[in-house]
Amino acid sequence: MGFPINSYTKSKEEYNRALKVIPSGIYGHLGPAEGCFVPVSAFPFFSERARGAYFWDVDGNRFIDYMCAYGPNVLGYNDEEVDEAAAKQRVLGDCITSPSTKMIDFAELLVDTVTSADWAFFAKNGGDVTTLAVLTARAFTRRKKIVFFKRYYHGVAPWTQKVDYPGILEEDVINNIYVPWNDYEKLAQIFEENKGEIAAIISQPYQHGNFVDNELPAEGFWQKVRKLCTDKGAILIVDDVRAGFRLDLAGSDHFFGFEADLICFCKALANGYNVSALCGKDFLRNTVSGLTYTGSYWLSAVPFAAGIACIQKMKRLDLPKLLDEKGTKLKEGFLAAAKKHGYDLRFTGMPALFYLRIADDNSLMLHQRWIAEMVKRGIFLTNHHNHFINAALSNDDIATTIEVADEAFSVL
Amino acid sequence: MGFPINSYTKSKEEYNRALKVIPSGIYGHLGPAEGCFVPVSAFPFFSERARGAYFWDVDGNRFIDYMCAYGPNVLGYNDEEVDEAAAKQRVLGDCITSPSTKMIDFAELLVDTVTSADWAFFAKNGGDVTTLAVLTARAFTRRKKIVFFKRYYHGVAPWTQKVDYPGILEEDVINNIYVPWNDYEKLAQIFEENKGEIAAIISQPYQHGNFVDNELPAEGFWQKVRKLCTDKGAILIVDDVRAGFRLDLAGSDHFFGFEADLICFCKALANGYNVSALCGKDFLRNTVSGLTYTGSYWLSAVPFAAGIACIQKMKRLDLPKLLDEKGTKLKEGFLAAAKKHGYDLRFTGMPALFYLRIADDNSLMLHQRWIAEMVKRGIFLTNHHNHFINAALSNDDIATTIEVADEAFSVL
Repeated sequence: MGFPINSYTKSKEEYNRALKVIPSGIYGHLGPAEGCFVPVSAFPFFSERARGAYFWDVDGNRFIDYMCAYGPNVLGYNDEEVDEAAAKQRVLGDCITSPSTKMIDFAELLVDTVTSADWAFFAKNGGDVTTLAVLTARAFTRRKKIVFFKRYYHGVAPWTQKVDYPGILEEDVINNIYVPWNDYEKLAQIFEENKGEIAAIISQPYQHGNFVDNELPAEGFWQKVRKLCTDKGAILIVDDVRAGFRLDLAGSDHFFGFEADLICFCKALANGYNVSALCGKDFLRNTVSGLTYTGSYWLSAVPFAAGIACIQKMKRLDLPKLLDEKGTKLKEGFLAAAKKHGYDLRFTGMPALFYLRIADDNSLMLHQRWIAEMVKRGIFLTNHHNHFINAALSNDDIATTIEVADEAFSVL
Repeated sequence: MGFPINSYTKSKEEYNRALKVIPSGIYGHLGPAEGCFVPVSAFPFFSERARGAYFWDVDGNRFIDYMCAYGPNVLGYNDEEVDEAAAKQRVLGDCITSPSTKMIDFAELLVDTVTSADWAFFAKNGGDVTTLAVLTARAFTRRKKIVFFKRYYHGVAPWTQKVDYPGILEEDVINNIYVPWNDYEKLAQIFEENKGEIAAIISQPYQHGNFVDNELPAEGFWQKVRKLCTDKGAILIVDDVRAGFRLDLAGSDHFFGFEADLICFCKALANGYNVSALCGKDFLRNTVSGLTYTGSYWLSAVPFAAGIACIQKMKRLDLPKLLDEKGTKLKEGFLAAAKKHGYDLRFTGMPALFYLRIADDNSLMLHQRWIAEMVKRGIFLTNHHNHFINAALSNDDIATTIEVADEAFSVL
């Protein structure tokens, strides 16, 4: 059952080599310092290769991967159609003095696909386009303040961080206002208290933060938020970097029955090829044109070709339905296994982006022990971050995962 | 002589198509709105393919390219060695849940190559690493203020922009201090006036700004700046995004005889594959480790493989010497052609990154007319930005360029 892990000897050796030349060895969300890799000894550090729903670590262990590179892997690693389109473009050229018309084709496809998109602007990081969205809102409204929903994540630019984080100044975040998710009354009150000063609300389509059960929008919440923004002249920015295309190819705003003014995409946009996009409404087009915003690799053609192939395949697969089915099957199996062993497992958020927590103890320890037992049996989950389903995940993979979950509960 | 341009019909058609779905059609530094494409009618907008020192536009016109995608093309477009290394890694995987050890290999190579590098941290944009450098300096010193040299460019993050740019707040730039390039007395005075408050100086290795003759450091300037930073406990950040590796593989700080505390690389780092790097001194390693800084694609393996192959080839070619020779040959030819026709052409900055200006009139018109005549003959230059030499540029290409320059002067 599963793929019992022999050892992480080589991972540890390589990590020691990394520590000499890279701060933290592996920094950021992929690294053991992040807080989701507890106990650290249960996790591999470096991969050798990946294919479909699997990756292999440097010790030769195979994992069924539920992190999907934290989102970019949506069709399966090394998807043949996407890789072929990218390779074909690479022969012609990638990062060239004048851009390829693939940029136009990609923008047209996004405008056709995403309901709230009248145009598209491409960059590299999710954070490039959340920052662009905020600049656009400030330039258009000539207001300063930005409303965030607590548990947000919009990248790592200084304006998105917290005042007590190292290197961050009070000035970076002084115009930020934080409101609890789903609390419309508080939000309306904030608008009253800051009349004519709020440039934008920025929000993920639902609360899918770390270290907390994920929470969908309350009935009618988004419709009220949309109306509030329209009434008060504030820009509604949806950060669809994480959920984008996994819930709805027309945008997660469309999924929840409203329309954003600006919507940010990255991760699933090109199956791992490096591109992000800000899409938005016509009335903001000229404002975006007037900003100073550019980057060395932003008009590179290979990721555009990959993105086109990725969106076309997601459409053909009816990807959101497919991922929801796979995620729902996994949910049912996980919950049954937990129930069988008497554990209160919470499976929250949308099935395609599920978040897990064992709620039997208030500490995180029991949950972390269960996750460790999963990982040591070749099922790659992390402790306190939402997971991701990809299209290459098979019914057999799901069945194996559920069997391993059963075994992992039994050894807790 | 040259490659007389037949028409830009298709470029214009495609640009009209782009305008419908992309703000400005082509935004940022590659676009006609940027101010370097004047008269717009002289320039192609979209490329079909690129190879070596050339790109072909969508109308089939070939250009000898002196912009090099604004820097990334350093070995020649589609360099076989770099592309082969990248393709080999792509078969294994690129953007995976756990990173490839290629990240470590790349960091080791940078630490071996760059004098001021004890470690490397990888991201995607030049601006990702200039921002990281500023965060690091602020976190380490617990000070706020950053000194810039006028005519700087450090990317497009809000802290690098100007208070009168759309979307930018006073708070974004309130801790910035601007000093004229090469003015050590003013700099020392600023440190006196802001005692114990300056976190860092950030600077390109020499002044290579737009719309102005480029200016090398005065004799001893960098050594005095280095000493001032050390004495006052400020971090010295070199932004080597544009000049990096073209002057000196050990870093442009090494080229000018000093050592930075932090040095930022991008562009020439991987011949167009999408990666940037912050390198720095040991004493800042723990500070970097403590920051919140990460991105979806930052640990992707393909650009690391490309970067390794690129640096190895740059070493084998002794690239800085090669580019200096090519740039110097071009300089001599350009100046002779200008003199023959009685024009005062200024060729400033380092030959590998040369900046051009016809100084006979105070308006920009004469210069722009000459550049237009060059472009219309298949030599791709832009008006008010520095240019870039790549290793694939042949002696024949240079000879052709000089012949075209002669002809372009003759028709002014």
